[in-house]
Amino acid sequence: MSSQPIYWPHTLVTWATSLFEARGTDLEKAASIASILVEGDLLGHDTHGLALLGPYLRKIDEGILKPTGTYDVVSDRPAAMLWDGGGLPGPWLTAEAVTQSGNRAKELGTATITIRRSGHIACLAAYLEAPAREGLIIEIFSSDPSVASVAPFGGTRAAFTPNPVAIAIPTSGDPILIDISTSITTNGMSARLQSQGKRFPGNWLLDASGRPTDDPAVFDADPPGTIQLLGGRDAGHKGYGLTLLVEAMTGGLAAYGRAENPTDWGATVMVRATDPEAFGGLTGFNHELDWLANACRGNPAIDASSPVRLPGERGLALKRDALEHGLVLNPAVQTDIAQLASETSIALPQSI
Amino acid sequence: MSSQPIYWPHTLVTWATSLFEARGTDLEKAASIASILVEGDLLGHDTHGLALLGPYLRKIDEGILKPTGTYDVVSDRPAAMLWDGGGLPGPWLTAEAVTQSGNRAKELGTATITIRRSGHIACLAAYLEAPAREGLIIEIFSSDPSVASVAPFGGTRAAFTPNPVAIAIPTSGDPILIDISTSITTNGMSARLQSQGKRFPGNWLLDASGRPTDDPAVFDADPPGTIQLLGGRDAGHKGYGLTLLVEAMTGGLAAYGRAENPTDWGATVMVRATDPEAFGGLTGFNHELDWLANACRGNPAIDASSPVRLPGERGLALKRDALEHGLVLNPAVQTDIAQLASETSIALPQSI
Repeated sequence: MSSQPIYWPHTLVTWATSLFEARGTDLEKAASIASILVEGDLLGHDTHGLALLGPYLRKIDEGILKPTGTYDVVSDRPAAMLWDGGGLPGPWLTAEAVTQSGNRAKELGTATITIRRSGHIACLAAYLEAPAREGLIIEIFSSDPSVASVAPFGGTRAAFTPNPVAIAIPTSGDPILIDISTSITTNGMSARLQSQGKRFPGNWLLDASGRPTDDPAVFDADPPGTIQLLGGRDAGHKGYGLTLLVEAMTGGLAAYGRAENPTDWGATVMVRATDPEAFGGLTGFNHELDWLANACRGNPAIDASSPVRLPGERGLALKRDALEHGLVLNPAVQTDIAQLASETSIALPQSI
Repeated sequence: MSSQPIYWPHTLVTWATSLFEARGTDLEKAASIASILVEGDLLGHDTHGLALLGPYLRKIDEGILKPTGTYDVVSDRPAAMLWDGGGLPGPWLTAEAVTQSGNRAKELGTATITIRRSGHIACLAAYLEAPAREGLIIEIFSSDPSVASVAPFGGTRAAFTPNPVAIAIPTSGDPILIDISTSITTNGMSARLQSQGKRFPGNWLLDASGRPTDDPAVFDADPPGTIQLLGGRDAGHKGYGLTLLVEAMTGGLAAYGRAENPTDWGATVMVRATDPEAFGGLTGFNHELDWLANACRGNPAIDASSPVRLPGERGLALKRDALEHGLVLNPAVQTDIAQLASETSIALPQSI
């Protein structure tokens, strides 16, 4: 690791911002995308951090990701909005929706914003920490109507994406940051193992006739296999229900989704904010959540070498360490960004 | 089956209402509890229908379930309320919260009501059909802070309930009705198998040292075992995240939960309503959901004898049949209600 460059995270944000600006991206959008991507790396989600910088820049070059302009407000009620993202960058749109739903929740108690035709939204966990530290509960659901890799329970033909769900829950200390999918695993993990010729640790997939398998090569078969729902064979009807909820709150509320058969890489996104002050108060909320957090952290572990953690605990520890000592990128990402820097003649920041 | 009585469902509702009224329950509350219990049986959830009539009547006799009075509004913002249920019947409180959150959602787009100190709320699926047919999305979360049978991921000591989640999603035809828990199985199913000396079809439990097992006898051990989270060993961190979300939206928003260590059988409940008209419109919503429903129903099945269904499809078919031809109760429930009728001298309705 000593040969790998170490960066102050804010210098990577500034650098990535410059690359987007050089492609004609508005400064505010460029900075928003760059900070969400670096936040993904800080939290240890290195498949969804600066690894996406190259793909995002290419989508701008191809005219699919729009570097300027704003979203259309399709519908506006006090506690509900629908935006048409028009292919603008997903990190900027999603961060905007977190801020605006949070502001409305502080007034009304709760608010929900759904965004159709957003660009890809990167790492969902990257949006959570700041609003949770402000005392808000945030839920983000996302689906990509141009992709399908998950079948309905009992079926064999892909009809859904893994449909990520991210949730921020305040406590009086570090917030709980949840970032999961409604299937057992994700498209990203499947692609990574497939490219490495590796298998999953369990039969997390189904082949095209519905037989459980650990082999991601089933995605190359014709017809292809699918990713099992959360709950698998025993309780996959529960993952199925959650998958349908995410589809309803994204494509359903957006009135734009799989029925339109879109082909551009993108996302339909729901952001929902809830303010505990509008219910029993943040102090009482924190009292309950602190009690639960302690009941988890103090829980006797199955394996004494793996103490029980709270969701987000590891990511926040990685981030704290990187802010103090600098960030070392995944080697593949380091190679990618060095290549991008050489192509664009915008030099990488100094290693510390 | 021919020897079992067959009832018109509405006659069972009238009969059960009379039993609650005879215990001093306000008519409106009595009728609300009775119709929710019978709705559970109609949908095939026979552990959470009239099976609960005897237990509910006993809780009234014991002074734990309150037959009269109303809830306190602890907090009231446009799109958020907290009620203190004061031990009133959960079916009445929950049905009220569905109606009131729905009315606010029709105006504001979304609204959320959390209820602390509710009585037990019976079958969560029983609240869903009517609002979904009105075009609303309803989510109901529930936890019981007096009970724990599920450990955090990687832990061995029970800290949570199975935390049910019910979701109603409109389509232009029958609604999608989801009723799941954030653990692999429920307390009710564990108790049923344990009393019958049976085992689960898979290793859905953990013993007190965290070893997977199919034997519900682990709940009698000291220390007791736990129910595995949705996702089990492979993906239980996802069920863990969902469990924490339910705890946050119930006990957290209520500022009343496990930290207070309550001992009375009851529930903390969240009801959230979302109106598609406030986003992309119900017509567009139905267009998307109909497309998804068809993609599911038309999906090639793993087992040709088990076609892919939508959540709630079987329950609604059972209900339709019972409304047309009459309802035959689970034999154990039939025995229970015959006993209750003889004790109270309020005769059971005529069999048809």
